[in-house]
This record gives sequence, C-alpha cells and structure tokens, in this order.
Amino acid sequence: MIERLARRRKALAVALADVGAQGLLVTDPRNIAYLTGFRGSGGVALVDDDGEAVLCTDSRYELQVVEQAPDVGHVISREYVSGVLGRRRGPADAPLAVEADHMTLSAASALRRALADTGGAATRIVETSGLVEQVRRAKDREELALIERACGVVDEAWTHLLNAGAIAEGRTEREVAADLEHAMRRAGSDGVAFETIVASGPNGAHPHHVPGDRVLADGDLVVVDFGATVSGYASDCTRTVALGTAPDRLLDAYDVVLRAQLAGVEAVREGMGCADLDAVSRGIIDDAGFGDHFGHSLGHGVGLDVHEAPAVSTRSTSTLSDGDVITIEPGIYLPGLGGIRIEDTVAVTGGGGRSLTTTSKALRAL
Amino acid sequence: MIERLARRRKALAVALADVGAQGLLVTDPRNIAYLTGFRGSGGVALVDDDGEAVLCTDSRYELQVVEQAPDVGHVISREYVSGVLGRRRGPADAPLAVEADHMTLSAASALRRALADTGGAATRIVETSGLVEQVRRAKDREELALIERACGVVDEAWTHLLNAGAIAEGRTEREVAADLEHAMRRAGSDGVAFETIVASGPNGAHPHHVPGDRVLADGDLVVVDFGATVSGYASDCTRTVALGTAPDRLLDAYDVVLRAQLAGVEAVREGMGCADLDAVSRGIIDDAGFGDHFGHSLGHGVGLDVHEAPAVSTRSTSTLSDGDVITIEPGIYLPGLGGIRIEDTVAVTGGGGRSLTTTSKALRAL
Repeated sequence: MIERLARRRKALAVALADVGAQGLLVTDPRNIAYLTGFRGSGGVALVDDDGEAVLCTDSRYELQVVEQAPDVGHVISREYVSGVLGRRRGPADAPLAVEADHMTLSAASALRRALADTGGAATRIVETSGLVEQVRRAKDREELALIERACGVVDEAWTHLLNAGAIAEGRTEREVAADLEHAMRRAGSDGVAFETIVASGPNGAHPHHVPGDRVLADGDLVVVDFGATVSGYASDCTRTVALGTAPDRLLDAYDVVLRAQLAGVEAVREGMGCADLDAVSRGIIDDAGFGDHFGHSLGHGVGLDVHEAPAVSTRSTSTLSDGDVITIEPGIYLPGLGGIRIEDTVAVTGGGGRSLTTTSKALRAL
Repeated sequence: MIERLARRRKALAVALADVGAQGLLVTDPRNIAYLTGFRGSGGVALVDDDGEAVLCTDSRYELQVVEQAPDVGHVISREYVSGVLGRRRGPADAPLAVEADHMTLSAASALRRALADTGGAATRIVETSGLVEQVRRAKDREELALIERACGVVDEAWTHLLNAGAIAEGRTEREVAADLEHAMRRAGSDGVAFETIVASGPNGAHPHHVPGDRVLADGDLVVVDFGATVSGYASDCTRTVALGTAPDRLLDAYDVVLRAQLAGVEAVREGMGCADLDAVSRGIIDDAGFGDHFGHSLGHGVGLDVHEAPAVSTRSTSTLSDGDVITIEPGIYLPGLGGIRIEDTVAVTGGGGRSLTTTSKALRAL
C-alpha cells in the first residue's frame, strides 16, 4: 500500500511540474485519502513536487492518521492550513498550487494569512482544477478489485431483492429502498455510495427522485438506482422493472434505452472520445424520437467518488484510457407517465470495455 | 410552506442589510433548500435584500424545481452563477454577498466573469460566513416536528435492535450497522443522516470508527452512533452497551460519561453560553481524571445538516436561544482498551432543554 501511495504522489508531482508549482495543498477529502491513505473527514495535506507529503488533522483523528497514513508527516491542529504550511520545505515563497474546485474562499483567506505568517506573503497561488482527479482516473489492480467487489455487492443485492419479491404492488418506494440497502450491507457494503433512488410510476420521470411513500401499482415502471461502497470505492447501477403491464409508450421507450445502453457498452474503446461514446447511445435515442427526453449525460467516472473524471457527455473533451471506470446510463423520462434508466459500471481494460455490474437488463415484469 | 420560506428570506434580508450587501449568492445546497424549498443536489440561488429569490439549476431538476420552489424565479442552465446573475435586479454593481465557507475558488472565478459580462465588473464582493446558518438556528414548529420525528425513528430503531438481540457476541460491527440502518428505514427514515458508527472493543477508542469486520466479543463496550433523516431533517444519537463484563476502568469511565451527559442536558438554559455548557460536562470528566481522553467538543447544532450552528465547544462564542437544537455527547476514549460516548439530540425550548432522543442511557449489559 505504501508503495502505491508513493506512486500516486509521484504521478501528481509530474502534473505539479507542468503547472509550475512546488507543492499542492490538497483540500478535497477523497484526494487526501487517495494520496495519503487517511480517510478522516477533516484535514488538509501538502504534497511536494518530490512526492513527499505532510498531513494536518484534528485530535479526533490522532490515532487514525497514524494507522492509515504511516508514511507521511502528521500535524495535529484544528488550523489545518497553517498546520501543514508550518512544515513546508523549500523556499517560503515558492509557487503553491491549490484545488480551485474544492478550496473555499474561507480556506483561501486562511492560506494567505498562514503564508504571511511564515514569510511567504509573496507566494504565487496557482489555482488548479482536476490535477489529482486525472491521476485517479487510472485505477490500479487493487482499486479495480475493490470496485469489482462493490459491483458484486450490487449484483448480489439486486438478485436477492428480486428473489425475495421485494418489488411488488402494495409496497412503498421507501420500503423497497430499505430492503435494497439492507441487502447491500449484508452482501458486504460499507454503506451506500449515494442516496438510493426508487422511482415508481410517474415519479420515474424525475431522474433524481427521492424514494417516498408512494405505493407501487400495477402498470408502473420502477427505476432503481443504487450503489455500494467497499473500502472507499463505489459502484453504480440502475435497473428498471415493470409491475404487471406498463403502457405501450413506456415499453417502447424501454426497448430504446436498452438498445442505447447495450450499444454504449459495446462501443467502449481505449482512445475513444468520451463525447463520441455519449453520441453512440444518444444517437439511438434521438433516432427513436425520444431525444428531448434524455436530458442528462451518458455517464461519469466511478472510483473513490461515485461521480468523478472522466465525464461522458456531449461536452466532454476527455479520451477513454486504460484503467478508467465509467458508467453508461442512458434514460428516457416522460413527464406524468414515467421513466426508464439502465446503467452499468464499466471498466476500460484490454482495449475495450468490461461491465462490472452484470445482472440481466431484459425487461422483467414482476 | 410558501409563507415560511418567505419569512426565512426576510430574516436573511435583515442580515444582508447588516453586512451592506444588496443580495446573497447562495451556493450551499442546504441553505438553498432552506430558503427556496428546492432540494436538488446542483444549483445556485440569489436572494435579494427584499427577500425575493431566483434559482438556477440544470435540466435534471427541471420538473423538481417547479414543484419544490414554486415562489421563486427559475433559470435552467448548467452555468448556475451566470444563470442567476442574468436575472439580477437593481444596479449591476451593487455589493453582492457570497458564502465564503462554501463558495469555491472556481465558483468565485465564474462569478467575477459573469459580473464582468453583465456590466458589474466593479461590484464589491462581500465574503460572509454563517449568515443563513444563523437564521437556520431558530427552528420553527414544523422543523421541530420533523427533527422530533427523526429522533423518534432513532428511538424506535434502537429499541428494535436491542429487542432483536442484534448486538451480540459473534456478530460483526458491519452486521450491526446493517440491521440498525434497516430498522431506521423501516421506522420512517429517508436515509442515514451520516455514516453509522459501530465501534467495538478497542475500536471504540476511535471516535469516528467505520464499522468493519471485527467480531463482537465478551467484555467489549460497543459505541453506536447513528442518525436518521426525515424530510431533510436529521437526528443524532449515541448509545454505548456492554457485552458481558467489561473491564473496570471502562465501567468507571461509563459512569463518568453518563454523569457528564445528564448534567449537560440538565444544564441547558436559554441565554447560556455554549462554551459554558461544554464546561459543565467537561468539568465532570476532568474532575474524574479522564480530561485527556475527551478530545472533541460537547456538541453541535442539528437541523438540515447533522452538524450545524451552534457549536457547543470550549471555543464557542454563541449563546443558546429558543429554537436551537443541539447534541450533548461527551465521551471518553482509552487507546487500546475502548471508548464510551452517550449522546442525545436536545431542543432548547421553554427556557430549558428537552431531549428529543429518549431511550435509556443506563449501562445495558447484553
């Protein structure tokens, strides 16, 4: 593990040289975990351009930081920013990179104060975006194994849910979500990767519906979007099932989404533009006349965050590379009627794509 | 509901006048929910000094925003900041407040660009901290009722867990967490308020332990810290139980924590300094010789966030006021041996405190 963490920091150091900074102040908790191993909820890390790191957290994590991040320097203080700045090596005013997508204005003020206190008032602060996130894209073997375990949890829980008859007329969305989350926990999840979505009937037209007290009824499509976490790594999966006989328009739309999803998974290639991948699935939905009802992007990276780089959208400028793990999740949402979404977590490996979530996507009428 | 939202925005408008700003750009999702009713995960709101508001979110939430926030203006765009700025009323360069604890450097850059594009390049940006959070402290009757329901869920789930014999030798921390979360869901929770903590034996010495595969054993104390969410509002509760006969030093420490917790709840008074409340419980732990083993603060506010204002700590400068809901959660953590924490969610009401979590705190040996 120590070697893997050092390798990640070395990869970051290369990116730091590209932006002309001597170190990166890491404020995003996922990035801190990725670079140091520390998984507490509060802290700041400073990674130098030689890959060395120092970490400041508060007394709640005094024991945990030693266990989880043994190869980096530790400071215990509530003043995270000045805590790590006090241990900075090299010239006091060497350019320092920050994570502009995560650092708040308050933290930036604390940084300026701490720099002034340590003789670095003239330090150039380099606002960067996505430096660590780009390194995180290339999952190593151990990371892939954890994501695959998180996907296995999702598969096992879904199969259990169907076999147990948990999605049935007369049950509420909330009850289905409860049973699914319990099944994921029993299958080895450390906790949900995101708020479980169970969207039945007309609620299915809301891509991000929160499960409520609606009672599942005959003729509903039910969209279930769920993910597990294993040792910090996420999985993400959506299946849509029917209760009894759903309206023809929804059944037609299901077929279109399924074709679009299968074509997307099939199209995955190392070196392919993410926008081109989005276009494969989107084109099928457009051609079927449902283009106005697929408003979100095709997918996103999955790892320590359930939403991370690369984006798989019309506007994405990224190219798929070996070690990427992405979702492919086309949907059609028909206001007042219902919705369909089908999603797998897919690893880019061996030149193509391999779906890590593997339960059946054929329409199941319950 | 519309009236309540308008009342909150009027209260914010008073605070805005105090900082000399014509509007507040609201970037924290909880604050957006509090002020507009919208509960999607992406968006930005602008609240003017007359209490009017406009909200920008993306197409994923096109239906949801109309349902949840009917009395504010809507813009659908991925460019949240420029979306709301384009609908700004009044002089283009009137002072604009931002939430410095939530706004990222990237969002601040987007704001400066959007201001320049709309003739407001000279706008003074006022960095504020806690404006909405201070308004949120005074829970109204409906909010208190939701928090009380979230506390009822926690009570019911805990009772169920004990009656079901779910905390027992031979079970893992993970299994206990799974059963507890399922019980909360069945009791009406919309989802966990935070990652459930089940910390057994020596793991109890880590205040924020993540439940793992450790098997519960005779002589363990088991710290269980858990919370539910009901319609966006959180509850927060900790109980510590014993398996068989725990070491004397832990049993002694349990008695101290229980005395400290009961004294804390008893001491709550409207108008009391939060630091003074912290001192009541901390003094008991100090006097018993365990002061070095209680490193965290006594408590925190609870509402839309499970951690919100006011802080109840040695460094807090806040004063308790009617409508505050806080936790009182002293603990003792003995490295290598185990830990104890006992916590209730307490409403400041009628001049004193009323515990909303009500299950027994006497040491239970299972």
